[in-house]
Amino acid sequence: MPKSIDKKYTDPVGKSVPRIDGKGMVTGQAKYVYDIGFANMLVGKMIRSPHPHAKILSIDTSKAEALPGVRAVITAKDTDKIKFGSNEHFFPHTIDQMALESEKVRYIGDEIGAVAAVDEETALEALKLIDIKYKILPAVFDVQEAMKPNAPQIHESLNNIAVILPVNFGNPDRTLKEADYVREDTFYTPAAHHACMEPHVCVGQWELFSNKVTLWASSQAPFKCREALAKTFKMDLNNIRVIKMSVGGGFGSKLEMLPMDFSACLLSKKSGGLPVKITYSREEEFIASRRKHGIIYKIKSGVKKDGTLVAITGEVIADGGAYCSYGPTVLAAAIMRIFMVYQIKHFRITGYRVYTNTPISGAMRGFGGVQAGFAIESHMDLLAKGINMDPVEFRLKNITTPNMTTINQMKISSNGLRECIEKATAAAEWNKKRGQQKSLCRGIGIGIAADVMGSKMYKSHESAGSIVKVEEDCSVYFFTGAADTGQGSNTALSQIAAQELGVSYDRIKCTSGDTETTPFDTGSFASRVTFISGNATILAARDAKNQILEIVAKEHNLNRDDLDIKAEEVINTKNNTTLMNFEKAVELCFSFNYGKQIMGRGSYNPNTTPIDFRTGEGNVSGSYGFEAQIAEVEVNKETGEVKILKLYDAHDIGKAINPQSVEGQIEGSLAMGIGYTFMENLQFKQGHVANANFAHYRLPRSIGIPPMESILIETNDPHGPFGAKGMGEASLLPTSAAIANAIEDAVGIRLKELPFTPDKVLKALHSINKK
Amino acid sequence: MPKSIDKKYTDPVGKSVPRIDGKGMVTGQAKYVYDIGFANMLVGKMIRSPHPHAKILSIDTSKAEALPGVRAVITAKDTDKIKFGSNEHFFPHTIDQMALESEKVRYIGDEIGAVAAVDEETALEALKLIDIKYKILPAVFDVQEAMKPNAPQIHESLNNIAVILPVNFGNPDRTLKEADYVREDTFYTPAAHHACMEPHVCVGQWELFSNKVTLWASSQAPFKCREALAKTFKMDLNNIRVIKMSVGGGFGSKLEMLPMDFSACLLSKKSGGLPVKITYSREEEFIASRRKHGIIYKIKSGVKKDGTLVAITGEVIADGGAYCSYGPTVLAAAIMRIFMVYQIKHFRITGYRVYTNTPISGAMRGFGGVQAGFAIESHMDLLAKGINMDPVEFRLKNITTPNMTTINQMKISSNGLRECIEKATAAAEWNKKRGQQKSLCRGIGIGIAADVMGSKMYKSHESAGSIVKVEEDCSVYFFTGAADTGQGSNTALSQIAAQELGVSYDRIKCTSGDTETTPFDTGSFASRVTFISGNATILAARDAKNQILEIVAKEHNLNRDDLDIKAEEVINTKNNTTLMNFEKAVELCFSFNYGKQIMGRGSYNPNTTPIDFRTGEGNVSGSYGFEAQIAEVEVNKETGEVKILKLYDAHDIGKAINPQSVEGQIEGSLAMGIGYTFMENLQFKQGHVANANFAHYRLPRSIGIPPMESILIETNDPHGPFGAKGMGEASLLPTSAAIANAIEDAVGIRLKELPFTPDKVLKALHSINKK
Repeated sequence: MPKSIDKKYTDPVGKSVPRIDGKGMVTGQAKYVYDIGFANMLVGKMIRSPHPHAKILSIDTSKAEALPGVRAVITAKDTDKIKFGSNEHFFPHTIDQMALESEKVRYIGDEIGAVAAVDEETALEALKLIDIKYKILPAVFDVQEAMKPNAPQIHESLNNIAVILPVNFGNPDRTLKEADYVREDTFYTPAAHHACMEPHVCVGQWELFSNKVTLWASSQAPFKCREALAKTFKMDLNNIRVIKMSVGGGFGSKLEMLPMDFSACLLSKKSGGLPVKITYSREEEFIASRRKHGIIYKIKSGVKKDGTLVAITGEVIADGGAYCSYGPTVLAAAIMRIFMVYQIKHFRITGYRVYTNTPISGAMRGFGGVQAGFAIESHMDLLAKGINMDPVEFRLKNITTPNMTTINQMKISSNGLRECIEKATAAAEWNKKRGQQKSLCRGIGIGIAADVMGSKMYKSHESAGSIVKVEEDCSVYFFTGAADTGQGSNTALSQIAAQELGVSYDRIKCTSGDTETTPFDTGSFASRVTFISGNATILAARDAKNQILEIVAKEHNLNRDDLDIKAEEVINTKNNTTLMNFEKAVELCFSFNYGKQIMGRGSYNPNTTPIDFRTGEGNVSGSYGFEAQIAEVEVNKETGEVKILKLYDAHDIGKAINPQSVEGQIEGSLAMGIGYTFMENLQFKQGHVANANFAHYRLPRSIGIPPMESILIETNDPHGPFGAKGMGEASLLPTSAAIANAIEDAVGIRLKELPFTPDKVLKALHSINKK
Repeated sequence: MPKSIDKKYTDPVGKSVPRIDGKGMVTGQAKYVYDIGFANMLVGKMIRSPHPHAKILSIDTSKAEALPGVRAVITAKDTDKIKFGSNEHFFPHTIDQMALESEKVRYIGDEIGAVAAVDEETALEALKLIDIKYKILPAVFDVQEAMKPNAPQIHESLNNIAVILPVNFGNPDRTLKEADYVREDTFYTPAAHHACMEPHVCVGQWELFSNKVTLWASSQAPFKCREALAKTFKMDLNNIRVIKMSVGGGFGSKLEMLPMDFSACLLSKKSGGLPVKITYSREEEFIASRRKHGIIYKIKSGVKKDGTLVAITGEVIADGGAYCSYGPTVLAAAIMRIFMVYQIKHFRITGYRVYTNTPISGAMRGFGGVQAGFAIESHMDLLAKGINMDPVEFRLKNITTPNMTTINQMKISSNGLRECIEKATAAAEWNKKRGQQKSLCRGIGIGIAADVMGSKMYKSHESAGSIVKVEEDCSVYFFTGAADTGQGSNTALSQIAAQELGVSYDRIKCTSGDTETTPFDTGSFASRVTFISGNATILAARDAKNQILEIVAKEHNLNRDDLDIKAEEVINTKNNTTLMNFEKAVELCFSFNYGKQIMGRGSYNPNTTPIDFRTGEGNVSGSYGFEAQIAEVEVNKETGEVKILKLYDAHDIGKAINPQSVEGQIEGSLAMGIGYTFMENLQFKQGHVANANFAHYRLPRSIGIPPMESILIETNDPHGPFGAKGMGEASLLPTSAAIANAIEDAVGIRLKELPFTPDKVLKALHSINKK
């Protein structure tokens, strides 16, 4: 019963096949957690602190428990009070949050308990009946205030500093003195919100007789969620199953277990095993998921007249909110990405990740690189300006090269940064336009960036596993733990599996992101999936292919090493002849004499070294990606509005597994960059989120997106799957700076604080006019 | 985060660990298909023929479709009219059933269509509104009538004979003439019903956007069900997922896809993708699942005075009902099991599998061996009696031995049959009791049997796959496609996995019987799981162990072949020293430098040869199991009631992986044997099932079960997993004969027709009294 492959075979890799989940998403049939409907499912709601900082004196849940329709109420007393966090391996002291707080609350929204009831009305009514007595504590909301010795202490840390990260190489103080030009700038980037179209939602079920917990989650990292559940429930990993459903956006906000996940499961246990669904309201999503770190970025650099960067120093202060979350990683990324971009020998930036009584800062697309990208790429333009050098020329002078080791021991293999800059500037006609359109209030600016593909900052390894099973009818199951959260990884990885197995893409059926039925995968973050999970997929497909070829070799008395499967044919590579087609080979495997189940498995862990967090030394990624971005803008001097005429993004992605998908990532990043540059700013008033809704927290819409040009640079990385690198974050990194640099080119103002609202533009214009 | 194994390590294999699913079953928390509750789930009902044989002239579903609450009505016109069956590979012409019949119906209950509605009342109401016009055809209900040339023809076959199976070796006609004693007997065994406590039930869902079908099934062979769905829906295997839930009994009735499974999925598709549940009523279960073949068994044998069996001839006529189902396999097993038991050189039995207009006969525990066992083991006693030989002595003279090849090329490796007979007779004090208790109307009788562990009669191979994954916390996932239907295979296979991996049984978490997430497994039938799936499990666990040991060897610069894991310790087998414990070894695998996902995979296909169905030659099983059974009875001459005083069963199971589980299988088989011997008889009147309920179809209850003694003989088969063989069917095979033989020993009557109801006993007693 062989499958009929109607279409003519074409190589799966490099083809813009439609996204596997595309049809389900556009027709509304894809299943999100919200769509799960079990009989007798309960509705859960979180009990949250109304205070930014307070001691919990007592909790009385008796009235809520007595309300008809309420099935369970949980508080910290129902838990083992085990703390969880995101950087356990490298920063154990940052493990600072409990699923349900018992002693103290640290931000408005902090989780104290949860209720489960037969319907939402009853659950909300029950929340009102929870009686909690607090002792209000003084709170601190500003990051610089929080660092002062006499500020209210939110955790046990000194001066509310959760993490200090001193990155130090060479002798920057001495070399700065030798520079021809030195300048210092301070940049301000605000808190922002991930603004996923799908708020956080989960269904938890605790099967009592087998003590097995299942969580249906909207997650970027189901295995990380499983680990946190196992830890906080003191259970074995194989008793916890996290099933990732379709995800309506994550962007870093769905990387971690949240108290809601823990609570849905525990409520189920206390309700006798009934499933419990907890859905965040849009307001909860703004308040109690995760947010972007607001960062103050001070940077001081020296250059030679010829443009050589000689030293950089600085200070990075990140507003972490109430708990650590991914703070250490964000801080590290905000400081150390620069080494991938610029060759620098003398460097010292110290980072501080500071607690405040505001919502929790965590991972957000770019992991601190967006804030750093704005600061560094704006600063680089100012340095170039200071020595009267073209900013493109300045960058070409200082950028990293292929096959080099950076000062902090990053091992760069392929590096298309130069080509990115050249292709982007050529496409944008940089030389023709730069400085030439001031009369039209038009300007052009550049920003460059680099990105990792994975980072061993979360645990001792960063591996991914894959399984490829070939069925009797030649259809293929492909299992990956990777979490497709909309970026299209299931599609790209399926293409990789098909290519390596040597078969048509149509044969592949991908199952992903289920901690029980798919192999471990660290998660979808740090642009790691194509590179790491892709390499695991190649290994699994190769293993399956080997099993088939071993049987073909045995049957035909050939040497297995002389055989390969390409384009649906088993070929003898020695004389380049076709032995049989794939279907005949599989038929042989499943024939009477062999009866062999073809099951390939692959495990990949990138060859990296851990970062030494005392210095910043370490090769965090198996390869590095690069890009150059150019913005053309027009400034309306009357209104302060900035119009983007066009964005160009030349991106070294190694090899585009699915070009359309790569372009989609670039365009999505640029749109997010535009939002962060002009609109997005999560604001707090005495710990309250002041704009916890889309009426006041504005996002770009498709109608306001300018023309974009994506230029894919294929450097065929030696370590990448079919040469591919990870991508998906880097394009967001230089956007704000490229725009800022273009604005200066257009109208001569320098904006150092995001977002660039019309009032700031007008103020800056006014300020230079006064001069 | 290593798992704490509280208990001291003990070897998993050979220990009566509690069944994994035991707690869930006794507390009522285990999930059966019936327990599945999805929001918006529809109720499906089958449209069935009220006639035993009729042509379908027209079907009008319009009134039903117009009924409010009806979501879909399907008939053959909604299908591709593809036939399915169970022996496609070897008997393609027996593929004779359509999911929904379009031209003709062949038994009362035959499926013509199905409806889906919002609730059961509406669905039942809709059934009444389906208007079907029939042309009634003459029907035939008796198997011997059906074979007559002018009988109504049910299918295209000649004289309603679906399969003729001529098994022929040597020259039986000549050798019979050379025998000292020849006799012929004819035995009659009735149709019977599997009588699962859980009737057939399924939930089908057709995800429209991805064209993926999921069926939650109560199945013994989910992969076979997947294959049939893929065939009848013309879909790829990897687009169909069959998920086996807890199963409340199968006994062969849940081996196949039924029209209900097909219909639930198709109704879902036609309802826009809503899940559809179809639950059989108890009456439907009796009528339209599967039934046991009633068999007429004629057997004629010759013996020498010294007891040597010289030749056997005979004829087997099996009543197949309306479609073929597993008929060919049942017929083959009814004839060929004898070769495993007795050394015989001259043999000819011809089997006929005949259609009648009655419910479909299929597989039932023992696959024809029960009916044959009654005939052959009764006949052997009569032969022994004919030459005045003790039936035990007679058997010991003729049985197969270890390491022999039978006349039909079965390769017997270990063979504990002699030991079984000796141990059983010793336990029962045969010599003391045989023929000595007539005054008490008490007698003792023996029956012996052998069994396969799997049989390549279903498809080209009979493989099983397993996957063993070791997680970071040393907990272990074990995936098997094997379907635990209550026999405890998940437990036994988990024990095997733990033993081979060298770890505590508590570490293992078993996931089974899901065609998407677990590897292929042919199914739970023919006592194949422990042997075949067990061997696959050993290979998977060994593969996982290898991966761990390779890393340990690399890290410590040792030779991997010198290392092993035993009892939670990594040992150097060269000097028998402990290197580290299992947890340290796994920690090393997941450490920074390795980051290796431990995923072992195993595929096992027994080394057998296909049966040549023109002769009966073939080594159908990778090993063979044996047993001897002794019944002690007391006959009440007044009432005709027979009381079993005790049953002894000595069983060569190779090695008891879980002794309690083995005993449970033996005791369950004996209980089933008692039912078939005394009570069970599925009766038909003009094609109607006359006793389609438990009031009129009586089963033994726990209260009526006599004392039983299980004697486990461990022959440590060289091909079995840790020496184990399959079992679970053989104990049922000789029960009726052992009882019949004991009755003759008690009161001198010979019963040749099952069941032994009091009236038959009284009639026989009356008849010998007359003589």
